Amino acid sequence: MTAFGEFEFIAELLAPLAAEGGLGLTDDAAILPKLRHGEAWTVTNDMMVEGVHYLADDLPDLIARKLIRVNVSDLAAMGARPVGYTLALSSDGKRNRDWFARFCSGLAEDQAAFGIGLFGGDTTSTPGPFTLSLTAFGAAPRGEALRRNGARPGDAVWVSGTLGDAALGLRVLQGALAVPEDVAEILARRYRLPEPRPELGQSLRGLATSCLDVSDGLAADLGHVAKHSRVGIEIDADRVPVSDAARAAMKHDAALAPLPLTGGDDYELAFTLPDGMEPPEAGRVHCTRIGRVIEGDAVSVLRNGQPVTLESAGWRHF
Amino acid sequence: MTAFGEFEFIAELLAPLAAEGGLGLTDDAAILPKLRHGEAWTVTNDMMVEGVHYLADDLPDLIARKLIRVNVSDLAAMGARPVGYTLALSSDGKRNRDWFARFCSGLAEDQAAFGIGLFGGDTTSTPGPFTLSLTAFGAAPRGEALRRNGARPGDAVWVSGTLGDAALGLRVLQGALAVPEDVAEILARRYRLPEPRPELGQSLRGLATSCLDVSDGLAADLGHVAKHSRVGIEIDADRVPVSDAARAAMKHDAALAPLPLTGGDDYELAFTLPDGMEPPEAGRVHCTRIGRVIEGDAVSVLRNGQPVTLESAGWRHF
Repeated sequence: MTAFGEFEFIAELLAPLAAEGGLGLTDDAAILPKLRHGEAWTVTNDMMVEGVHYLADDLPDLIARKLIRVNVSDLAAMGARPVGYTLALSSDGKRNRDWFARFCSGLAEDQAAFGIGLFGGDTTSTPGPFTLSLTAFGAAPRGEALRRNGARPGDAVWVSGTLGDAALGLRVLQGALAVPEDVAEILARRYRLPEPRPELGQSLRGLATSCLDVSDGLAADLGHVAKHSRVGIEIDADRVPVSDAARAAMKHDAALAPLPLTGGDDYELAFTLPDGMEPPEAGRVHCTRIGRVIEGDAVSVLRNGQPVTLESAGWRHF
Repeated sequence: MTAFGEFEFIAELLAPLAAEGGLGLTDDAAILPKLRHGEAWTVTNDMMVEGVHYLADDLPDLIARKLIRVNVSDLAAMGARPVGYTLALSSDGKRNRDWFARFCSGLAEDQAAFGIGLFGGDTTSTPGPFTLSLTAFGAAPRGEALRRNGARPGDAVWVSGTLGDAALGLRVLQGALAVPEDVAEILARRYRLPEPRPELGQSLRGLATSCLDVSDGLAADLGHVAKHSRVGIEIDADRVPVSDAARAAMKHDAALAPLPLTGGDDYELAFTLPDGMEPPEAGRVHCTRIGRVIEGDAVSVLRNGQPVTLESAGWRHF
């Protein structure tokens, strides 16, 4: 890091990204802006570690954008509109100014995409892998944020987009799955650059009885809804939406078939709606009804109408 | 981590620490509580990496408390009252339930000490050193937070407590400085468990023209005030407050003499007040007048009335 250190990084690359509340990144802390009348702040915090949450050779702008997106996805799951973020990073001392400049251009791109600004943060060093920690701030009318604890027997279970792509993309990037180039590209991009659903999340306020984002794997994530809503959830595996690319990739190996149910990193929204209600159009993303809420306390998966057992429900972080 | 993983850590050890806004740590994000009328949220974020910001054999409860305190110190520097925090950690897989339990008892102890609660966070794994990232939330009347940009020529420069203890304590703990046991204990504790000054910070609102916490070294930190206030700062080195323990330790080696000016990690407040004004009693911590704000753009240090040059103004993070 000769000739490019912490203070240059902050003053030259990060300060131009600062929101008004970030005070130009010159002070000990940020001052959050005023919210609209009746709104409350929604706050989430996700870390990313090189080699664990992204690959060492991922492009710096995509790393930055993935970091923003996994956090925006948590805000989306709460039905909050994204507002801003703080960023802490621990640098491994192996990167030059160009790497940080490209990282910051990724931040800038997704700041524009999601209408958010930088409030502040921290820069440190580490003898270990490059480590990022982002705290994202959103806003939702107080009392209207989406929770995990309101699903009721009889509700329908829905999911946005398609599932399994990111987990398949990771396998492609790791060299563990050989597929045609066009398929590989689509799946790898889904792993590297998830598409969070903040508009869908906001459109579900007042309608969805529960909501979360699919980050650890659909079955594991819906397990949290089952637990906190004290209900059972029945997923019809045949209805779980799968992209053409994922379908093409899964043809290569029967062992990949459970990935739409167990693979993480898709960052789609899974939610429950009262029976007969459709997700509003406003989300502009296709949603699929994949199951129903029942009496009980766990997630069960049906294939061809018969219960099946999943070897792993999803990803545990440690 | 056999038999003690992420979900147990959250449900058994962290959930009992959750503030109301943390929703029992069951959701994708927290919802911040309502502030008092006219207040704004103040937000800061500090990371700690094992071996960089604390020592591998530091006790887990002290690591937790130091993490809270360095962040509370940033809130203090803004004149904000501490309210809560989110915690992200990357675990190295080397710790058992007992370690995490003692870590959480440290969190609990300082939650009580500072009147704060846990809002949420993230748990991940790392192949590198144990890494912690805390985002702290405070509150101050909107427009009244203390900043770094308001110092004016003629103001007096003040600092709370004593300086240099933590840097000396680190050298003692690293085995680089041999001192009597009672001195060693006092200095090591100052490194391991800083004493942030949130009451003092709040009492300075409306009075101090600038304020920050001394984390990188007095001269370096006052350099930020000089830069953002567009002033010069003259420090009288002979007035910089030094504890009896630090004085005893510095006798062993003349090279240690600059540490009160350059050593980091003290987490005292440095602030400027209009000439003739005294810090209010409310802070209940001794404050010392150590210099003055002048026309200029840099920090200069006088010893016996003569300018001296510091070899290093303070700590850079990378």
